[in-house]
Amino acid sequence: MADNERAKRGNEMRERLFGAAPPPSETFERLMGVTNEHLFGDIWTRPGLAVRDRSLITCAVLTALGKEAQLRVHMKGALNMGISREEILEMMVHLAHYSGWPTAVNGTRVAEEVFKEADGAGG
Amino acid sequence: MADNERAKRGNEMRERLFGAAPPPSETFERLMGVTNEHLFGDIWTRPGLAVRDRSLITCAVLTALGKEAQLRVHMKGALNMGISREEILEMMVHLAHYSGWPTAVNGTRVAEEVFKEADGAGG
Amino acid sequence: MADNERAKRGNEMRERLFGAAPPPSETFERLMGVTNEHLFGDIWTRPGLAVRDRSLITCAVLTALGKEAQLRVHMKGALNMGISREEILEMMVHLAHYSGWPTAVNGTRVAEEVFKEADGAGG
Amino acid sequence: MADNERAKRGNEMRERLFGAAPPPSETFERLMGVTNEHLFGDIWTRPGLAVRDRSLITCAVLTALGKEAQLRVHMKGALNMGISREEILEMMVHLAHYSGWPTAVNGTRVAEEVFKEADGAGG
Amino acid sequence: MADNERAKRGNEMRERLFGAAPPPSETFERLMGVTNEHLFGDIWTRPGLAVRDRSLITCAVLTALGKEAQLRVHMKGALNMGISREEILEMMVHLAHYSGWPTAVNGTRVAEEVFKEADGAGG
Amino acid sequence: MADNERAKRGNEMRERLFGAAPPPSETFERLMGVTNEHLFGDIWTRPGLAVRDRSLITCAVLTALGKEAQLRVHMKGALNMGISREEILEMMVHLAHYSGWPTAVNGTRVAEEVFKEADGAGG
Repeated sequence: MADNERAKRGNEMRERLFGAAPPPSETFERLMGVTNEHLFGDIWTRPGLAVRDRSLITCAVLTALGKEAQLRVHMKGALNMGISREEILEMMVHLAHYSGWPTAVNGTRVAEEVFKEADGAGG
Repeated sequence: MADNERAKRGNEMRERLFGAAPPPSETFERLMGVTNEHLFGDIWTRPGLAVRDRSLITCAVLTALGKEAQLRVHMKGALNMGISREEILEMMVHLAHYSGWPTAVNGTRVAEEVFKEADGAGG
Repeated sequence: MADNERAKRGNEMRERLFGAAPPPSETFERLMGVTNEHLFGDIWTRPGLAVRDRSLITCAVLTALGKEAQLRVHMKGALNMGISREEILEMMVHLAHYSGWPTAVNGTRVAEEVFKEADGAGG
Repeated sequence: MADNERAKRGNEMRERLFGAAPPPSETFERLMGVTNEHLFGDIWTRPGLAVRDRSLITCAVLTALGKEAQLRVHMKGALNMGISREEILEMMVHLAHYSGWPTAVNGTRVAEEVFKEADGAGG
Repeated sequence: MADNERAKRGNEMRERLFGAAPPPSETFERLMGVTNEHLFGDIWTRPGLAVRDRSLITCAVLTALGKEAQLRVHMKGALNMGISREEILEMMVHLAHYSGWPTAVNGTRVAEEVFKEADGAGG
Repeated sequence: MADNERAKRGNEMRERLFGAAPPPSETFERLMGVTNEHLFGDIWTRPGLAVRDRSLITCAVLTALGKEAQLRVHMKGALNMGISREEILEMMVHLAHYSGWPTAVNGTRVAEEVFKEADGAGG
């Protein structure tokens, strides 16, 4: 079935970016269905822009918009896509000037947590 | 003098990105002084993140924040840094899902203008 | 006294929407005075737009602006005004496309908490 | 073909909301493809939230986010969906308190233009 | 009548800030009624914060939120309240770091227009 | 060395505003270097706008942008610069109308915490 293929492709992209995830709660099923089929299945898999660049601009925009819960997830994805810790921290210095200092301070705080967790997981 | 070196480095980076610019009006002198010395002289020239990636995330964030006048300038810079038209338009499709459809529609409108102008200049 | 009537009308509207609330702390007295008299007493009671529709657009805008503490309160109000859980969750899917995916994810998280609390209170 | 059905359904929804539209320019083809198939074809046609309510919250959110070009289009759609001029203007008074006075002033300015155009078209 | 006193006080405050204004169009009557009575009549006239400081923070916030049409009006008010051109331009340099460079560039552009108009009016 | 002077001046300004601070963690070194040298060393020390007014507009803008972690720090700074509790609370009532009620409610909540902490520290 067409839609199952889209969701399957979406799950694969999510796993490639973030690793395996638990199934959504009942409340989240509605939104997560569209997220898997459309956002990860249709959009993230499109040609025209490298997945590494999609990951980079997603982190940049989540920082600028102050969406820290989502930044936490996508920053792990960025590390998985080969973006370095130095590039992430330097991005925060750069963005301080475009979306304001507080967005960069909050983004660096997220980085500190994500890096610590990655160190712990590998320890 | 230290500050003149910073401003000189900033002017060179601005020219590399956008080409030559007219001197600022008297009202803009105060802000443009800091822009040249600090933003372009100190920040854009830092190691740790490629200029191409700085250009890409700057365009992404200006799109997400709806800063279209600045996006127009930085999108020209992105083309000068080797980012393709396809990458720019695909970035808009991607960002529609993170900062909302209207930001992507407005960003695509800016792209249409910038591409037309680039075609005209090369015609 | 005219102002007491405005505050009284405001308190009635707040109770209708959210149920009884504790009196504000001393720090909040200044803002809550204007909130009761003007926002709930004068504005929410105006004709021209149904209270149910005021509740719906307030939830939509709080979701889009990422004001989750206030969304929590107004989502309870929306349920009290007869807006269904399905309508709230579907609103999140819809708004993902206008204010960005992260606002919808955070809004759905608020819904999950509000629904659980409502289930607990009725259990 | 599955995707053509989605785009067809999307075009029908767009026409129902806004009337016939010219085909997109080449630059807009990429984004408009996703807009027709997914946003209007898949999302606006979902059950769970009335089209009239989707229209109302879309106008509210576009007002709050200051997306005036898109608000202009969706406000015409709101009038076509049976939302009255009084409801639109009263929504602006209400939203002044949630997304700030300037968003309501700008939204009322858009309303003034849309109403005038509607009067002219019907005159 | 109580409400007429509030509107009268509001009109006086508006004139003190901005000079005489034309009556609102029919579309704006609804919002402008609340603006005069409540925003200028009740809020701007409250004790606890000097009118000069209200004017200063209003300009700062309108700059940060990118509400340029309203900034234009309130910047004239700031000059009328004794805030200097130097203070306004320096505020833009300061805010570049808190709400992002583009907000400061756009705010300086508004200043350039307002200063030119003030020079023309006094010439 | 020129840069050390800038950082030294920045540290002095930070201490004047907020009191002594612990050294940054390794993750924050990159951003805090620019913060001390440029933001506090170069910008906050510029003539043209009083430090008290810089503090006032910084608090206003952080309230409007919903940057509550940073508002907490700068509100302490505002009290240290002689801005009164009444002025801060009245600013929240004022800003409710420009950046929306939720920003003012959240800002008043920060004020409540900051005032309690200040009372505790002096008790």
